[in-house]
Amino acid sequence: MLCVGLDTDLTKIPTHLRNLPDPVFEFNKQIIDATLDFAVAYKPNLAFYEAMGLKGWESLAKTMEYLPKDVFSIADAKRGDIGNTATMYAKAFFGEMDFDAITVAPYMGEDSVKPFLEFDGKWVFLLALTSNPGAQDFQYREQNGEKLYQSVVSKALAWSRDMPGHLGFVTGATRAEQIGDIRSLAPDSFFLVPGVGAQGGDLDAVCQMGMNASGGLLINSSRQIIYAGNDTNFASQARKQAQAVQESCARHLGF
Amino acid sequence: MLCVGLDTDLTKIPTHLRNLPDPVFEFNKQIIDATLDFAVAYKPNLAFYEAMGLKGWESLAKTMEYLPKDVFSIADAKRGDIGNTATMYAKAFFGEMDFDAITVAPYMGEDSVKPFLEFDGKWVFLLALTSNPGAQDFQYREQNGEKLYQSVVSKALAWSRDMPGHLGFVTGATRAEQIGDIRSLAPDSFFLVPGVGAQGGDLDAVCQMGMNASGGLLINSSRQIIYAGNDTNFASQARKQAQAVQESCARHLGF
Repeated sequence: MLCVGLDTDLTKIPTHLRNLPDPVFEFNKQIIDATLDFAVAYKPNLAFYEAMGLKGWESLAKTMEYLPKDVFSIADAKRGDIGNTATMYAKAFFGEMDFDAITVAPYMGEDSVKPFLEFDGKWVFLLALTSNPGAQDFQYREQNGEKLYQSVVSKALAWSRDMPGHLGFVTGATRAEQIGDIRSLAPDSFFLVPGVGAQGGDLDAVCQMGMNASGGLLINSSRQIIYAGNDTNFASQARKQAQAVQESCARHLGF
Repeated sequence: MLCVGLDTDLTKIPTHLRNLPDPVFEFNKQIIDATLDFAVAYKPNLAFYEAMGLKGWESLAKTMEYLPKDVFSIADAKRGDIGNTATMYAKAFFGEMDFDAITVAPYMGEDSVKPFLEFDGKWVFLLALTSNPGAQDFQYREQNGEKLYQSVVSKALAWSRDMPGHLGFVTGATRAEQIGDIRSLAPDSFFLVPGVGAQGGDLDAVCQMGMNASGGLLINSSRQIIYAGNDTNFASQARKQAQAVQESCARHLGF
């Protein structure tokens, strides 16, 4: 159930890596090697690579090449645009970069989401209820007793019917009560759950409210794992953290 | 008032450019040269560059270098993420790439928008009401008589108070009636108005409903201008279209 978020920030990685030709890739490579026994997915956060310009895109491309093919890869990109533009984003992430999944923002509605669902076997994780404080601003707005995030889930499930791609939802770990609510609207969907760790989400509550018979949760942890250590043994520290999160998840799955 | 959208698609540019080392940059360069007399801003649509991978980012970087410094540049990126990630996106577009402005999506609320407003003298165009059919899905949802797009405008104006950056709104040209409504909520704000041309927006109606005393509108046209021609005289065709749109705008400004 564990997804490791690769929010790799040049200013936060151990100093001994910084003089290498591609410190970001080297950091990612060692994090992947150290955590692969405990993770089923990796989620690079696009912002961190874009902030480094061309060099960042090179580091990302090398990271994607390095990831074993049987590991699930999620582009945390939160894209959302009109139909013809959404098609170009889908080509970028599913074609050019060959990610298995992408996070997508719902504000612009059906024609901004469907182009991603046209890719056979690929996954969309649509933002439903996010983990950050700003989720309060619009996502809970209510019309006729239905909150915005509930409407997003219901409408998107209808859009995804008969599409070749798969639909899941982003449900922030800091809002465990509402994860149960979203689970009742989408009993069979996969949820990508960020916000465990640095953002304060409670893993036990999330599992209790959000799991379905087949698990149905991908628990993302980024900073808590990748910055667990800050010197030459950062990778073994990351491994320990990944193992701890994975074991907590496994307990809930009944292993 | 004219903004030229650089939605440059390798499959749509004239064939005689396609064998050059960087056809996308060559196309952009000739479009910029041909339209500079009539445009005040250029808006590369990030999806089209991301879809080409590393090569696309190179073309974009060269385009940004080529743009004269007194011309306003807008990254049509529609980013939106939690605070620390939004800060990285702001660094990417305002720092690394030196855009004057970026389009931002509001779904994740205050902490997803404010990091962009922390950059002195830079601009955020926040999605209010978009030009695409999917705008109907969520943007008109009403709570206590206030629609979602109205709430986005009112809240964001409050967030932008005392921030060093500037706030404007994206208001789709296909929804001229509501542009008047947004103008009454935000009398002094700049609106970036996409959807004239290929998407069917009516320029006259937009100007009538959306202008304020100082103009207050940036009218974006992408496909209608850059793909006006499809052979060796594509640039002069683009120039003619840009001139036509600019002259329509000027009439409304009273020149």
